[in-house]
Amino acid sequence: MILLSVSSSTSSPIAAVFSVALLLFYFSEATLGAPCPINGLPIVRNISELPQDNYGRPGLSHMTVAGSVLHGMKEVEIWLQTFAPGSGTPIHRHSCEEVFVVLKGSGTLYLAETHGSFPGKPVEFPIFANSTLHIPINDAHQVKNTGHEDLQVLVIISRPPIKVFTYDDWFMPHTAARLKFPYYWDEQCLQESQKDEL
Amino acid sequence: MILLSVSSSTSSPIAAVFSVALLLFYFSEATLGAPCPINGLPIVRNISELPQDNYGRPGLSHMTVAGSVLHGMKEVEIWLQTFAPGSGTPIHRHSCEEVFVVLKGSGTLYLAETHGSFPGKPVEFPIFANSTLHIPINDAHQVKNTGHEDLQVLVIISRPPIKVFTYDDWFMPHTAARLKFPYYWDEQCLQESQKDEL
Repeated sequence: MILLSVSSSTSSPIAAVFSVALLLFYFSEATLGAPCPINGLPIVRNISELPQDNYGRPGLSHMTVAGSVLHGMKEVEIWLQTFAPGSGTPIHRHSCEEVFVVLKGSGTLYLAETHGSFPGKPVEFPIFANSTLHIPINDAHQVKNTGHEDLQVLVIISRPPIKVFTYDDWFMPHTAARLKFPYYWDEQCLQESQKDEL
Repeated sequence: MILLSVSSSTSSPIAAVFSVALLLFYFSEATLGAPCPINGLPIVRNISELPQDNYGRPGLSHMTVAGSVLHGMKEVEIWLQTFAPGSGTPIHRHSCEEVFVVLKGSGTLYLAETHGSFPGKPVEFPIFANSTLHIPINDAHQVKNTGHEDLQVLVIISRPPIKVFTYDDWFMPHTAARLKFPYYWDEQCLQESQKDEL
């Protein structure tokens, strides 16, 4: 039984390290190592070899498993995200559907089901490895690693790119929430792609 | 590190079995054990406790992790499927997006990229634990466990319910393919739900 592994194993002998270096030399950035492998994308991809980034958010590791910018998805996106203990998503909401599948670790889903002028005090749901959760449309929520080991989740959203409203706290008025649209994790690749078309 | 486990562990002592029986007695079919838990569905669900079925297909175990009938999803569905060695999906195609995340085992994706009057000889792609694959829209395909252990995949599709064309073989004309729409894994629950409204 093998679990999705984000960081590659480093216990290989030196010879293996050299083999990998050699492989990287031959395959170059055009295939495995490229941050924006838009063209010639293989149908089957090794998740361990996908680029990962924290996008300036401490404790986060994000991988786009299947995305609109990288893979031309138009109806669903899938992300693999790992949150170090204490880290999590911002408080936010969106009108697309979202489902989490928890692969490792534990944490808390904070979900504000209120329909007033601000999210309000959220309900807390424990989440754990082998659990799944769906976020009701437009409900403000936050997923946080409140455990002691890494929290790893697969995130599935509909209708990419996502349109996100972000809140500083649970009592910030909806009208003051910050809108980001379109929200692309792989924005850099979009810009490079657009430049190519000039 | 914990992996999604379809079948529950049976190595617990007898006392634990009695505890589980007691729990089931208290919670009754209205929560965990019900095949159609439509009402009062919790936001967070333990995947190990979801109903599973083979739907008459030998070697298959299917769980609807998040579905249109069971959970009111309108834009995405997520399934957890396990294929015994030698089993697999039928040869089929659909116009929705589909992404697989392989959690365990290995197998083969057969993909016919032809645009003639029938699918034609497919290209074979090895798939393996920790890989992901996306199916190009409307391309006929089949995922098969060609390995020696269970093949476990998360399947994500867009725009449920799915509209499927199924083929007996790769050379069956598109015009002869069998259409099933709407394709509900949890059809039984839909019927029960409809009856309730009479």
